[in-house]
Amino acid sequence: MTFSARPLRLATTDSGFDAALAARLHWSADTDAGIEQAVADILRAVQQRGDAAVLEYTNRFDATQAKSLAELELQPAELRAAFESLPAKQRDALQAAADRVRVYHEAQKKASGESWSYRDADGTLLGQKVTPLDRVGIYVPGGKAAYPSSVLMNAIPAQVAGVGEIIMVVPTPRGEKNPLVLAAAHVAGVTRAFTIGGAQAVGALAYGTETVPRVDKVTGPGNAYVASAKRRVFGQVGIDMIAGPSEILVLADGSTPADWVAMDLFSQAEHDELAQSILLCPDAAYIEQVQVAIDRMLNEMPRAEIIAKSLNGRGALIHTRTLEEACEISNRIAPEHLEIASRDPQKWEPLLRHAGAIFLGAFTSESLGDYCAGPNHVLPTSTTARFSSPLGVYDFQKRSSLIEVSEAGAQKLGAIAAELAYGEGLQAHARAAELRLKP
Amino acid sequence: MTFSARPLRLATTDSGFDAALAARLHWSADTDAGIEQAVADILRAVQQRGDAAVLEYTNRFDATQAKSLAELELQPAELRAAFESLPAKQRDALQAAADRVRVYHEAQKKASGESWSYRDADGTLLGQKVTPLDRVGIYVPGGKAAYPSSVLMNAIPAQVAGVGEIIMVVPTPRGEKNPLVLAAAHVAGVTRAFTIGGAQAVGALAYGTETVPRVDKVTGPGNAYVASAKRRVFGQVGIDMIAGPSEILVLADGSTPADWVAMDLFSQAEHDELAQSILLCPDAAYIEQVQVAIDRMLNEMPRAEIIAKSLNGRGALIHTRTLEEACEISNRIAPEHLEIASRDPQKWEPLLRHAGAIFLGAFTSESLGDYCAGPNHVLPTSTTARFSSPLGVYDFQKRSSLIEVSEAGAQKLGAIAAELAYGEGLQAHARAAELRLKP
Repeated sequence: MTFSARPLRLATTDSGFDAALAARLHWSADTDAGIEQAVADILRAVQQRGDAAVLEYTNRFDATQAKSLAELELQPAELRAAFESLPAKQRDALQAAADRVRVYHEAQKKASGESWSYRDADGTLLGQKVTPLDRVGIYVPGGKAAYPSSVLMNAIPAQVAGVGEIIMVVPTPRGEKNPLVLAAAHVAGVTRAFTIGGAQAVGALAYGTETVPRVDKVTGPGNAYVASAKRRVFGQVGIDMIAGPSEILVLADGSTPADWVAMDLFSQAEHDELAQSILLCPDAAYIEQVQVAIDRMLNEMPRAEIIAKSLNGRGALIHTRTLEEACEISNRIAPEHLEIASRDPQKWEPLLRHAGAIFLGAFTSESLGDYCAGPNHVLPTSTTARFSSPLGVYDFQKRSSLIEVSEAGAQKLGAIAAELAYGEGLQAHARAAELRLKP
Repeated sequence: MTFSARPLRLATTDSGFDAALAARLHWSADTDAGIEQAVADILRAVQQRGDAAVLEYTNRFDATQAKSLAELELQPAELRAAFESLPAKQRDALQAAADRVRVYHEAQKKASGESWSYRDADGTLLGQKVTPLDRVGIYVPGGKAAYPSSVLMNAIPAQVAGVGEIIMVVPTPRGEKNPLVLAAAHVAGVTRAFTIGGAQAVGALAYGTETVPRVDKVTGPGNAYVASAKRRVFGQVGIDMIAGPSEILVLADGSTPADWVAMDLFSQAEHDELAQSILLCPDAAYIEQVQVAIDRMLNEMPRAEIIAKSLNGRGALIHTRTLEEACEISNRIAPEHLEIASRDPQKWEPLLRHAGAIFLGAFTSESLGDYCAGPNHVLPTSTTARFSSPLGVYDFQKRSSLIEVSEAGAQKLGAIAAELAYGEGLQAHARAAELRLKP
């Protein structure tokens, strides 16, 4: 069977371009009432009956026959054995990726995650103390989307942040364990791991059970049940963002081999038929070359069917007037992954305000970022890069303000605070400040 | 009418102490199905009919007679005039508070909010670019909880972050404007302001209307309708946390005048009868002195009734074995405001892991932090300090990863990425990396 992929062709000079682009970008996370109800029931059961409920749901949904939740815990020795049993090349690649991810996140902690303070002229100390979360839960999907790289990308920033305990959950339908996922848990420094999944695993982490310890935050991707459960436990625990389909946007000046760009579009499209791959380029002949490369390479790809569906349904090759205009459109789209396939990427980077990750120059394929460049591959999707950030060390830390007012400072600040507090009708606030004033 | 306040007395040596403390801390944000439905309807109407819907709801709920949404915009001249018309002492206090808040948040930006990058040995660049949000919306409650200090605490971090436009919304029931709120908007550098509120104002900011521009994030406190609307638009825009009742926890070694501590407990309790004030102290005689001070001062307070309800219903004076034990209990509670009323606060501060803001020493009344010490007064409540942070410059910025892989880097990274991508069954990812390898 052969497939054909023809991404939508648009030009910014088309009448109706804005509407056509908006239609192509449209994606909505519909919530399913059946899923919502099922998840509410599961969470309630886990909250009330703890281990027993988690065990029942796990045996039912994952077709396992465990007798106790303790049976579903993976021991550290098993994780280490999985790592040691990998073929040498794979083991080395996993370790090399983990090392690079760790170095990047250590730099991130140093640059933006340390405590600070200063004293003003009155000797009053002001600052912020940064502390790691005590305990976090990492959800790792089982089945077809079981990605060891996601284990690294969630666990390593937590470990670099200094989180005391990292609890991993991963469903193992019919008891089948993915050795690469277990090995990644070993490399990434996961503290404890349980082979449970779905809303019941999210509930176990959020509320705690006899066997699964309660965590302070749950991160990691999952299916619609997991996403719904994360939304529901939010507030009880922290959560990371709820991800939509993956996206790539390539800005091209025509200097990067068309094959490379076509393959980068494929690499996004192969995730999921809802994934989105967009090319923006002022050079019509180059767009044509990319289409030719797509035609030539598509049927060599094992996942050609998914790629074709994704490119036909959601892909676009867009002819722009200039690369400046392409940058403006990119800011409107706020893509998860943004490649600047240009001879002079540093010229364009400052124009790009909204993106999860920016890949500069021909040699920076998005897939290098997915695995081992160092930055996190958990990135904001569906235009949320307008207001949110890659998963990072900062997601596993929290800040506390520090204030130590000197006696001299209390005299000045007390007068200001009292004036404003009386203005707001909060007299006890005012009196608390005034009691510290010298007579 | 006179009131009496007797916070619950507990001792850590009591049998059943843990359960008694848990019961005292219990608070749940019940969602009301009627409110949920009303908010869903309002948001849908605003999304579909824009200005017209916002105008209808505003005239209905706020008892106004506006003919167009443009009429409900506050002009900059009106904000400035409100500031200039304040009594000099109030004007100076507002300006002084704003200046201190700005200095603190500038230090915060410098310490943790700047872009950074490094190159590895292969010449590959890795980093993170920090950019401000384009446009944010700030919700300011009207009526009894109209606090000008909240305008400063929401708008100034946004302005320091470099946000292009700050849109304030504030309901004005029966058209009554609060001059201090308008003045604060002037001082804090609000770009545009509308006298609209409720779920309709949140919808207008999240979706945009003909008159109200769409924003990227909505922050600020509000009633149950506003909180529900913020939860619903989350994803479409960013939101800050949903706040529960305010809390103070005081750790005392007995060296701070008992009056001062009692007044600090009052200052939290006067916000709301659900507010929570807790004292932890190893000195039983001192706890008695605080109760005596409560008895003596309560009926001098204009808000004595609210204070009494709050202290009787949710307050606690807890006798601990030691101050170390008090620190452990504080970490379990993860309070919004934490005072260390000790002769040696720096000794205890490192033991305190979870708190929104920490106030060190006798002179640092919590109320100084509310208005003018500099740090933000928007803080995590209801134990969420376990995983979240004060509102800050970082809430008005987002980060983008930067990766520029050199040709040499692409050779090493490409081999690693391809190995892992094949392991995950993502062949286009692997091929994209391999195409960059030299033959």
